[in-house]
Amino acid sequence: MEKIAVLGAGSWGTALALVLADNGHDVHLWAHRKSLAEEISRTHTNEKYLEGVALPEQLQATHEMAEAVRGAGHILLAVPTKAMREVCAQLKDLLQDKVILTHAAKGIEPGTYKRVSEIIAEEIPKESYEDIVVLSGPSHAEEVSRRQPTTVTVSASDLTVAEKVQDIFINQNFRVYTSPDLVGVELGGALKNIIALGAGISDGLGYGDNAKAALITRGLAEIARLGTSMGANPLTFSGLTGIGDLIVTCTSSHSRNWRAGYKLGQGNGLEQVLEDMGMVVEGVRTAKAAYQLASDQNVDMPITTGIYQILFEDKSPRDVVDQLMTRIRRHEMEDLTNILDQQLND
Amino acid sequence: MEKIAVLGAGSWGTALALVLADNGHDVHLWAHRKSLAEEISRTHTNEKYLEGVALPEQLQATHEMAEAVRGAGHILLAVPTKAMREVCAQLKDLLQDKVILTHAAKGIEPGTYKRVSEIIAEEIPKESYEDIVVLSGPSHAEEVSRRQPTTVTVSASDLTVAEKVQDIFINQNFRVYTSPDLVGVELGGALKNIIALGAGISDGLGYGDNAKAALITRGLAEIARLGTSMGANPLTFSGLTGIGDLIVTCTSSHSRNWRAGYKLGQGNGLEQVLEDMGMVVEGVRTAKAAYQLASDQNVDMPITTGIYQILFEDKSPRDVVDQLMTRIRRHEMEDLTNILDQQLND
Repeated sequence: MEKIAVLGAGSWGTALALVLADNGHDVHLWAHRKSLAEEISRTHTNEKYLEGVALPEQLQATHEMAEAVRGAGHILLAVPTKAMREVCAQLKDLLQDKVILTHAAKGIEPGTYKRVSEIIAEEIPKESYEDIVVLSGPSHAEEVSRRQPTTVTVSASDLTVAEKVQDIFINQNFRVYTSPDLVGVELGGALKNIIALGAGISDGLGYGDNAKAALITRGLAEIARLGTSMGANPLTFSGLTGIGDLIVTCTSSHSRNWRAGYKLGQGNGLEQVLEDMGMVVEGVRTAKAAYQLASDQNVDMPITTGIYQILFEDKSPRDVVDQLMTRIRRHEMEDLTNILDQQLND
Repeated sequence: MEKIAVLGAGSWGTALALVLADNGHDVHLWAHRKSLAEEISRTHTNEKYLEGVALPEQLQATHEMAEAVRGAGHILLAVPTKAMREVCAQLKDLLQDKVILTHAAKGIEPGTYKRVSEIIAEEIPKESYEDIVVLSGPSHAEEVSRRQPTTVTVSASDLTVAEKVQDIFINQNFRVYTSPDLVGVELGGALKNIIALGAGISDGLGYGDNAKAALITRGLAEIARLGTSMGANPLTFSGLTGIGDLIVTCTSSHSRNWRAGYKLGQGNGLEQVLEDMGMVVEGVRTAKAAYQLASDQNVDMPITTGIYQILFEDKSPRDVVDQLMTRIRRHEMEDLTNILDQQLND
């Protein structure tokens, strides 16, 4: 039994804390809001983020980060990408012994184009941690909290550290695999949220499953294109953290990125949609970062560009989706072959 | 305006005939059942297969195959794989001038392991046709008949013939692309039906989207493995006729393979399920063919094997799915890397 701190009591942080508590660990969940920490500790619920779920009674929650991390060997960062720097800045002064830092965030920072592990490495001194691990994969928090079968992948520069994280999380329902491709695992999780917005927009416009499948397929191709240009292994995008996560996010009403896209497709403006959601929609900021990055690196990303134009340039969702449907290449193999060629030449 | 014969008035044949009629062609739809031909010609409906759809009034239907094909330059075969040999045997004596034969069937023949274009080539003399073309992709007939945006791919040994088929089908809502990989396009369409049965079984057992996404992802890997061993380009499985079709078939209740799987997952026996469906479920026969083929060729296909055991060896769906969830490889990249290696060594 290890003491483990989970920072962030949203749906994903709470669900992962539940898995760790199920595995018998001494789990301390830090919530930004005092009232939420109290709700979790007293009534063993988190009604806003995991409605109707009874949390394990041994799961402790606190509003004091110092209390959560004191003596913990593992720290899981489960806050939105936008909050990552601020939480790390607060965390770094609390670290004494070397810890293993794992994050479960799916985003890229606009402006800097940093992946989450890079953000953490910038904010926390290297001597404070063994390594930074990412946990990602096709995993709705709601289902994990109901102990439904789920598979995820962990990755780190040092695969032996990733295996330690695999060990604390793995159980009968929650299958954890390892991958050596940190860059690919982080990018797959981040970029799929953009395509999920697009899938939601298509559904919100009243288009069907045929149109959505075409968008997802072409979305995977452009994710792989950008990912490869940033050093990822293109094959990672065919795995659980690529196509697997893309499918779950694009085809389920659990997905808040899909839900936000759906409302946009129905004609609502971005501000209104974000206000209605009341939760962070990672895909919105990631779309901005990926759009900037693709322009910088000269990578062709028609779907990401279209989503960016809907979000930030007031383009009509119908015009964008219609344009995307007609511009898919005649010889669709072409750019996949290019990715393969690139891979061979590396 | 060309005379085009469509053989098979199920949901897919009727929907494709509607597309061709929308494009102004002189379309003659052959129905096996006389009463169905009469319904289509008289009331411009096909209530069994496309409920609530008003068919174009210029769309002719007939029970006489000779009448449908007389003078037609294009013939579209839209019958189940199981009926393909019989329909071709009937067709061959009716052919006079060279025609372009296109098929829209998604199966493999148990015992012979033949793809549909190979079946057609065995049954119809080479001098009767210019080439055999396959049309495949993520396309529920119901949505096509409602003119919702849809993308498909056509492929043939002779790509210029595939382009002629592209020309007769393409319109604003129905986007048609070409691929040089006939083997990959045919196999992707056939093999995804097995995974769709698996996705339905998982849903029928009450498992969630996380489990289904893992099954689909691993299903794609094993489809690509078998396909590559049969000469397909592995990249085809990342395109519209691979992952695109897989997504649409696994995540939509329109899909009869998914529906059959769902009933199996709920505990019904195969015979009962097929009787309730009252339509051909291609995945059942294809699972048998792929299982035999994989054993013959020594290709590892755990999901196909599991589905085969549920269908033909009375194994419990829950045991099979639980086993699949726990056996997914620790290093999931491994077999994808193997596919790539194989591709490079060819």
